[in-house]
Amino acid sequence: MPLTPLPTLLVEPLVRQALIEDLGRAGDITTHAIAPLDCAAKTVMAARQEGVIAGLDLAAIAFRLMDPAVRFKPVLADGAHVAPGATVAIVEGPARGILSAERVSLNFVSRLSGIASATARLAAAVSHTKARIVCTRKTTPLMRSIEKYAVRAGGGANHRFGLDDAALIKDNHVAIAGGVAEAIRRVRAHVGHLVKIEVEVDTLDQLEEALGIGVDAVLLDNMSLDDLRRAVTMIGGRAISEASGRVTLEVAPLIAATGVDLISIGWLTHSAPILDVGLDYLA
Amino acid sequence: MPLTPLPTLLVEPLVRQALIEDLGRAGDITTHAIAPLDCAAKTVMAARQEGVIAGLDLAAIAFRLMDPAVRFKPVLADGAHVAPGATVAIVEGPARGILSAERVSLNFVSRLSGIASATARLAAAVSHTKARIVCTRKTTPLMRSIEKYAVRAGGGANHRFGLDDAALIKDNHVAIAGGVAEAIRRVRAHVGHLVKIEVEVDTLDQLEEALGIGVDAVLLDNMSLDDLRRAVTMIGGRAISEASGRVTLEVAPLIAATGVDLISIGWLTHSAPILDVGLDYLA
Amino acid sequence: MPLTPLPTLLVEPLVRQALIEDLGRAGDITTHAIAPLDCAAKTVMAARQEGVIAGLDLAAIAFRLMDPAVRFKPVLADGAHVAPGATVAIVEGPARGILSAERVSLNFVSRLSGIASATARLAAAVSHTKARIVCTRKTTPLMRSIEKYAVRAGGGANHRFGLDDAALIKDNHVAIAGGVAEAIRRVRAHVGHLVKIEVEVDTLDQLEEALGIGVDAVLLDNMSLDDLRRAVTMIGGRAISEASGRVTLEVAPLIAATGVDLISIGWLTHSAPILDVGLDYLA
Amino acid sequence: MPLTPLPTLLVEPLVRQALIEDLGRAGDITTHAIAPLDCAAKTVMAARQEGVIAGLDLAAIAFRLMDPAVRFKPVLADGAHVAPGATVAIVEGPARGILSAERVSLNFVSRLSGIASATARLAAAVSHTKARIVCTRKTTPLMRSIEKYAVRAGGGANHRFGLDDAALIKDNHVAIAGGVAEAIRRVRAHVGHLVKIEVEVDTLDQLEEALGIGVDAVLLDNMSLDDLRRAVTMIGGRAISEASGRVTLEVAPLIAATGVDLISIGWLTHSAPILDVGLDYLA
Amino acid sequence: MPLTPLPTLLVEPLVRQALIEDLGRAGDITTHAIAPLDCAAKTVMAARQEGVIAGLDLAAIAFRLMDPAVRFKPVLADGAHVAPGATVAIVEGPARGILSAERVSLNFVSRLSGIASATARLAAAVSHTKARIVCTRKTTPLMRSIEKYAVRAGGGANHRFGLDDAALIKDNHVAIAGGVAEAIRRVRAHVGHLVKIEVEVDTLDQLEEALGIGVDAVLLDNMSLDDLRRAVTMIGGRAISEASGRVTLEVAPLIAATGVDLISIGWLTHSAPILDVGLDYLA
Amino acid sequence: MPLTPLPTLLVEPLVRQALIEDLGRAGDITTHAIAPLDCAAKTVMAARQEGVIAGLDLAAIAFRLMDPAVRFKPVLADGAHVAPGATVAIVEGPARGILSAERVSLNFVSRLSGIASATARLAAAVSHTKARIVCTRKTTPLMRSIEKYAVRAGGGANHRFGLDDAALIKDNHVAIAGGVAEAIRRVRAHVGHLVKIEVEVDTLDQLEEALGIGVDAVLLDNMSLDDLRRAVTMIGGRAISEASGRVTLEVAPLIAATGVDLISIGWLTHSAPILDVGLDYLA
Repeated sequence: MPLTPLPTLLVEPLVRQALIEDLGRAGDITTHAIAPLDCAAKTVMAARQEGVIAGLDLAAIAFRLMDPAVRFKPVLADGAHVAPGATVAIVEGPARGILSAERVSLNFVSRLSGIASATARLAAAVSHTKARIVCTRKTTPLMRSIEKYAVRAGGGANHRFGLDDAALIKDNHVAIAGGVAEAIRRVRAHVGHLVKIEVEVDTLDQLEEALGIGVDAVLLDNMSLDDLRRAVTMIGGRAISEASGRVTLEVAPLIAATGVDLISIGWLTHSAPILDVGLDYLA
Repeated sequence: MPLTPLPTLLVEPLVRQALIEDLGRAGDITTHAIAPLDCAAKTVMAARQEGVIAGLDLAAIAFRLMDPAVRFKPVLADGAHVAPGATVAIVEGPARGILSAERVSLNFVSRLSGIASATARLAAAVSHTKARIVCTRKTTPLMRSIEKYAVRAGGGANHRFGLDDAALIKDNHVAIAGGVAEAIRRVRAHVGHLVKIEVEVDTLDQLEEALGIGVDAVLLDNMSLDDLRRAVTMIGGRAISEASGRVTLEVAPLIAATGVDLISIGWLTHSAPILDVGLDYLA
Repeated sequence: MPLTPLPTLLVEPLVRQALIEDLGRAGDITTHAIAPLDCAAKTVMAARQEGVIAGLDLAAIAFRLMDPAVRFKPVLADGAHVAPGATVAIVEGPARGILSAERVSLNFVSRLSGIASATARLAAAVSHTKARIVCTRKTTPLMRSIEKYAVRAGGGANHRFGLDDAALIKDNHVAIAGGVAEAIRRVRAHVGHLVKIEVEVDTLDQLEEALGIGVDAVLLDNMSLDDLRRAVTMIGGRAISEASGRVTLEVAPLIAATGVDLISIGWLTHSAPILDVGLDYLA
Repeated sequence: MPLTPLPTLLVEPLVRQALIEDLGRAGDITTHAIAPLDCAAKTVMAARQEGVIAGLDLAAIAFRLMDPAVRFKPVLADGAHVAPGATVAIVEGPARGILSAERVSLNFVSRLSGIASATARLAAAVSHTKARIVCTRKTTPLMRSIEKYAVRAGGGANHRFGLDDAALIKDNHVAIAGGVAEAIRRVRAHVGHLVKIEVEVDTLDQLEEALGIGVDAVLLDNMSLDDLRRAVTMIGGRAISEASGRVTLEVAPLIAATGVDLISIGWLTHSAPILDVGLDYLA
Repeated sequence: MPLTPLPTLLVEPLVRQALIEDLGRAGDITTHAIAPLDCAAKTVMAARQEGVIAGLDLAAIAFRLMDPAVRFKPVLADGAHVAPGATVAIVEGPARGILSAERVSLNFVSRLSGIASATARLAAAVSHTKARIVCTRKTTPLMRSIEKYAVRAGGGANHRFGLDDAALIKDNHVAIAGGVAEAIRRVRAHVGHLVKIEVEVDTLDQLEEALGIGVDAVLLDNMSLDDLRRAVTMIGGRAISEASGRVTLEVAPLIAATGVDLISIGWLTHSAPILDVGLDYLA
Repeated sequence: MPLTPLPTLLVEPLVRQALIEDLGRAGDITTHAIAPLDCAAKTVMAARQEGVIAGLDLAAIAFRLMDPAVRFKPVLADGAHVAPGATVAIVEGPARGILSAERVSLNFVSRLSGIASATARLAAAVSHTKARIVCTRKTTPLMRSIEKYAVRAGGGANHRFGLDDAALIKDNHVAIAGGVAEAIRRVRAHVGHLVKIEVEVDTLDQLEEALGIGVDAVLLDNMSLDDLRRAVTMIGGRAISEASGRVTLEVAPLIAATGVDLISIGWLTHSAPILDVGLDYLA
C-alpha cells in the first residue's frame, strides 16, 4: 500500500498561513539586510536522528511560496527510514528565499517526521501480529489532516478524522442513553448507511451487550491483558476490536498478542517528540 | 509579573477553525443521535498529572462558540500549579454543546499546559540563578502566539515572535556576509531604531568580533560549559547572553551556573508532551 | 428520530456571505432611502405552496446578522408539513433590517424547503416498504451540509458527504483496477477501520464478484426491476442494497417493491424546484 | 453581443471552496486506493440532453486546481446549443486528478447549463417580439455572479445584481413611504446620479402615479394581459416596462405580445432543473 | 436626506482586520505591562480642528471588538460640523481595552473625517448653485465603501462604486471602439436595463456625437469654463452633466456657475488630509 | 542600503482584495462591452509630477492577477526620483486586462509614491544632519506594511510596526503607572530580551527620570527647539532621541539641527497627497 500524498488544495493554505505567521508585517529583516537579491545558496536538508521522514511536500510548498525560483529536490520520499545524517532533500536557489522559508519548512517536516517515527517504532513492535497502530482525534488544532497523514507515513492507520465521518459512542454517551445497547440503537437509527459505528466498552458485560445488538467496532478501553484476551474470544470476528489506554512501546506487543485488531494511541499525535531535521548550507 | 491573557481577537479565530475542523460537514453525529436537545450535564475539567495549567481561555471560547448556553467556570488561573486530580474548571449546561466541544477544548488545554509544565520544570531547575528559560521559533505552525503564551504561563520568557520583530543573525547569515562584524554592520544599517540585534556565535573569536562592533545580544550556540563561562566574562554585561543547544533538565542548572542571562530551548514548544487533562461527567 | 439542527458554527458563515453578496458595496439603497431608522414592521413568513419546511435557522441567522433587534419567531419547526398559506414564522422589528434580509432569508428557506418537500414526496411514495430515499453528491457547490440537512428534514437519509468519509467505487474505478474484486481489495487495504466501502455494479455478474469478496454496500445502477429483484435475492442481507438511475415519483414505489434498502436520487438536490415561501407585511 | 467570461478572480475562489468541500479532511480515498499516481485517462465531457452549455471555465478551473497536469480542452463555448450526446470538452491527463475533480466540475456545469437552457427556451418563445427574458435576485446563495452569467449564456439579460447597484421600490417600500410618488421622491433624493430607479406597481393607478413623477423602469407585477397592454400604452416609451409573476413557457409569448420590454422570471435561477452533463472515460 | 449608516456586516470585518494588524502576534505589550486588568479609564474623543465628523460607528466597533466592556457613547453624529476642541464621544471602561484600540479607532475616524471635511468645504463653496460634489474610484484600496460613505457624510454624492454598477466610457474605450457613438452603442447592447451609461468627452464635437445617440450622463473632462458653459447649453437637460479635472476650492464655484450638475474630485478620497481627532484621558 | 521588496506572500492578498472590490459582482462591464477579447494595447505608466516612485510590485501583481498575459515592465525601480512625464513602466498585452486593472494599480502606486515623495522631501531637508525621518502607527488601516515600505522607499526609516514589536510608553501609560520610572520598570519586567523600550516625555524632568532608570529611546513630544537642544545634551548618547509634534518641511531642519536622532511624522502616512501617476495608451 503506497503512501498517497495529500491534495495540494488542502495543505497549501496551511503552509501559506504558517509563512505569513512567521513573516509578520515586515518580513525577514535579518536576511534582507545581509543577503543581496542575487545571492545564491545550495543547501541540504538532512536528518540528525534515526527515524521516518514525512512532510516533504509541505517543505516544497513552503520554499515555492516564498520564492518560485527556489528548487526543492527530494532525495527520499515520505515514509522512508533515515539514518542520522541522511540527506533528505537538496534545496537550491536564491539565498533569501531559502533562508526565509527554512524555519517553517523544518517546523512542518520535523513535526510530521516525529509522528511518523513514533508510529513506525510502535508498528515495528507489533509487526509480528495482525494488530495495527492507529491514531486518535487528540491532534494539534488545525493540523489533523497532515498529522493523520504522518501516521500513515509511519505505517499506522487512521481512526476517524472528525466528529462526522463515523460514530464513536463513548462512556458519556452510554451514560446519557442509559446503556450500551440503547446507545447503539439510537445511533443506528440516526446515521446514514455509509457510517460505521464503534462503541467504547469498559467491561466484558458491556461488550456482551454491544455484541448482542451488533456494532461495527468495539473500543476496549483500559482493559487488562486478560480481559483483552477474553474480549477477543467473545467477539469472535463479529466486530473490529480496538484496544486503547496508556499504550507504551513496551506494552504494545503484549496487547497485540491478545489478538486485537487495532491499538490506538493518542500519544502519537499529541506528544511525539519531533525528528531533528536541519538545513545545512553547502555554499 | 502577572500573566497577561492574549486578546480574544487573536485566539478566537484559532478556536473557531479547530471546532470547524472537528465538526466537518455533518457535525457531531454520535452526540446528536444520543443526547436530546434538553439534556443537561455537569462536568469537571481535571488534571490527571502534576504540572502547570495554560489555555483555559481557549477552552472557554470553544464551549461558548459551540453553544453560548454552556457555562465554563475556571477554578484555577493559567499559570497555576496543579496536582494530579486537581479540578481546573467546572463546565455545565447543555450536554450536546459540552460533548461536541470537549475534544477541541482539551486539545488546546493539554497541549498548552504541556508546554507550560515543561517550562516550569526548567525554570525551577535554574531558579537559584539569574538565568531565564526562553523559547524559540520552533513552534507548531499557526500556534506561535498561544505557544509563546504557554511558555510565559510556565514562568519562561519569549524570544522573538517572528522574522520581523528582531534581527537574529545566524551562522548562514554570517557566512554570506563574510564575518560577524560585517553581518552586524549590515543589519544595523537596515533596521529601525526599535529593533534589537542578536548574533549567533560558535566560538570565542566570533564573540570577540561581535563585542568589538557592539550588539544587543549574543547567542552562544552549543558551547562547552567552560567556553560559556569564558564568554560571560568576556561579555561583562555589554550584551545579553543566551546559551542554546541540546539543553536538558539535568544540564540546565550547570549552564545557568555559568552566568548566562538566558537559556533557550526549542524542545519546549516542539517536543514537550501534553499535560493529561480530562473532562469528567458528574451528571 | 427527531431532526437535529446543524451547528451554528457551520451555517453562520454561509448566511453571512450570502448577505454580503447581496449588500454589495453600498448596502440596501432603496430601503435606506425610504424607511426611517425608527420605522418598525411586523411580518409573517408564509408558505404559498404545500410542502415541507426547512432552513428556518438560516433565516433566523440572516435577520439577526442584519440587525440583532429583529425578532424571528418560528411558528413551525423544520420538517413540518405546511399547507398553502400556512404561517411559518413571525418576523418583527426594525423595518430596515427586515427588508434588507428578506430576500436572502427567503432564498435559503425556499431552496431548502424545496429539497425537503421533494424528498418528502418520494419518501411518502415508498413509505409502505422498508426502502429509504437518499441523496447524492450532486449538490449545489458550498451548500452540501445544508442541502443534506434538508433531505433529512424531508424524511430522507444521507449518502456520504464527500470524497473522504466513505469509499464509493464507481465504474471508472473498476475499469482502472481491472475488476470489481480487485477494486474492493485495493480500497480495503487503503482505508481505515471506520470507513465503509460501497461498490457500483452494472450487472449481476459484477454483483456476484462483489459479494464474493464482500463489501458493505452495493450500488445497483440503472438496473431493470427484474434485475433489482434478482440482485436483492442474491445479496440476501449480506450488504446494503442501493438502487439508482433516473428515479421518478412514479417509478420509486416499483423500485422500492423490489426489496432494495435504499433509493438514491440526485434530482433531490440538483433539480428540485423551490417551495414558494414569502414574507407578508402586516404593518 | 458575444458572451463575456467572468473574471477568474471572481470565480476561482468559488471553485476552490467547492473542491475543498468535497475533499474534506482526507481527500478522495477511493481514487487514491485504486488509481496509481502515473495512471492516465482520457475522458469526454458530454451533454446527455438537449440544451445550452454554460460554466466550462469553472470546470477548467476545477481540473486545474486539482492537478495542473490535467488538460481541459473545450470543444464548444459557453452559450452553444447542444444535442444529446454532444461532446462539450475533452479532459485528459492523470486519472487521479480527473476522477477527484469530476463531480465538482459537473456540479457547476450541469447547474449553470440548466439555467442557460431554461433561459434559452424562454428566450426562443419570445424571440419574435422585442421582449427580453431577465432574471431576479432569487439566486442560490453565493452563486449570484455565475448564475446571472448563465442567464446571459442562455440569451437572457440581467436584472440588478444586488441591493446596491440599482433601486427597486417594492410594495412594502411603497407602503412605508405612503405612496408610489413619495417613494420615488425619497429614493431620487438619496441615490447617486448613476443609479437607476425602478418601481413595482400592482395597479394602473399606481402606474399613473409613477409616470407622473417619472421613473426609469416600472415592474408590472402579476397584471392581467389586458392590464399589461394598457400599461404599455400608458407608458408610451417613457419608462422601461417589466412584467413579472408566475411566467411559464406557455404564457411568456402572450406577455411578450403585450409590448413589454422585459419579462422577469425568478424560476430561471431558483428552480431550473440541471442539464444532464457527464464525463465518459474513453481510456 | 439623513445620512444612512453602513451595515455592520460590511464594516466590522475591516475594523477587525485593522485591530489584528495592529496587535500582531503578541498584542499590546506596553499596555499589558503597565495597566492592571481592573484599571478603569474615562476618555473623551475630541476634534482638534474644525471640520466634519465621520466614522464614529467604526470607532465604536473597534472598542467593542477589543473589549465588550468598553462603553462608546457618541456625543455627535456622523456628518456633524465640529469646532476645534469639540467633544465627539465619551469612551469609558477598562483602560486596557481603551488604550489598545485607541490608535485604530482614531485612524478610521480621522481619515473619514478628513474626507468628510474636505467634501463639506467644497460643497459649501458651490452651495448657491445646483451643482453637487461627487467622488471617484480613486479611493484607498479596500476602503471604498467607507470612503464613499464619508463623502456622503460631508454632503457630497457618490459616483459609481466599482467597475460593475454603472458603465463609464473613458477616452481609451472610445479609442478602441473608434468613436463615441459606437462605444455607447456597444455598451447599450451589452448591459442590463438598470445600468446607466456615462461617457467621457474631451471636446464639444464628442459631446454632440454622444447627445446624438443618447446617453445618461456625460463627463466633461478638463474643459475650459467657456466650453463647460457651451456644453451645458448643448445638453439642455437631455443628460446629466459632470465636470472633472484639477478642481480646487477656488475653481469649484466657477465651474458650478457654468450650470453643470456634478463636479467630481478624486482628491477628496486620495489626498484629503485627515481631520486631527484625539483621545484625551480624564481619569 | 538598497530597498528590499516586500514578500509577495504579504502583498498579493491586498492587491487581490482590491481588484475584487473594484470588480464587484459583474466585473468591468464597460470594457467587456467595448474591447474584443483579442484587442491588444500598449501603454505607458508615467508620472505627472515630480517625486519618488513606490509600489511598482503591487502594480505588477494587479495586472498579472487580472490577466497573466499582460506584461508589466518596470523602467524605474521603487525609490527612484522622477520628473514630470517620466516613464515609470511599460504595460502591454490584452486591452481588457490592462483597462480593468488600471485604476487599482494606479491607486496603489500613486498612494505609495505620494508617501515616498513626501518622505523624500523631508529627508532632503535634514540630509545635512544625522537626523532621520521616521513614520508612526498613524497609517491607513490594512496598509501598514506597504505604507511603511513606501516610507523606506522615500529614504525614511520605520518606527515600530504595531503594538507588539516594541514597547512605546505614552503619556497615558505614565499616568497609570504613576511616573516615568515606574512605567519603564513595569515594561522591562514584562517584555522579552529582544524588545526595545521607548518612553514619551513631555518635560526635561521626565527625561531625567527616564535616563535615571535607563531606556532604549525617548520620544521628545512637542518640545521647543531650546528644550530639544537641552534634551540632546542631557541624553548624551545614552538613548536614541526622537522628536515629534507638528513637524513641517520648514521646521524639520531646525529640529534636526538640535541633534536629535529621529524626527517622526504621522503626516507622512495619514495625510500625504498622492503622486499623480497615470496610464497613457499608445496604441
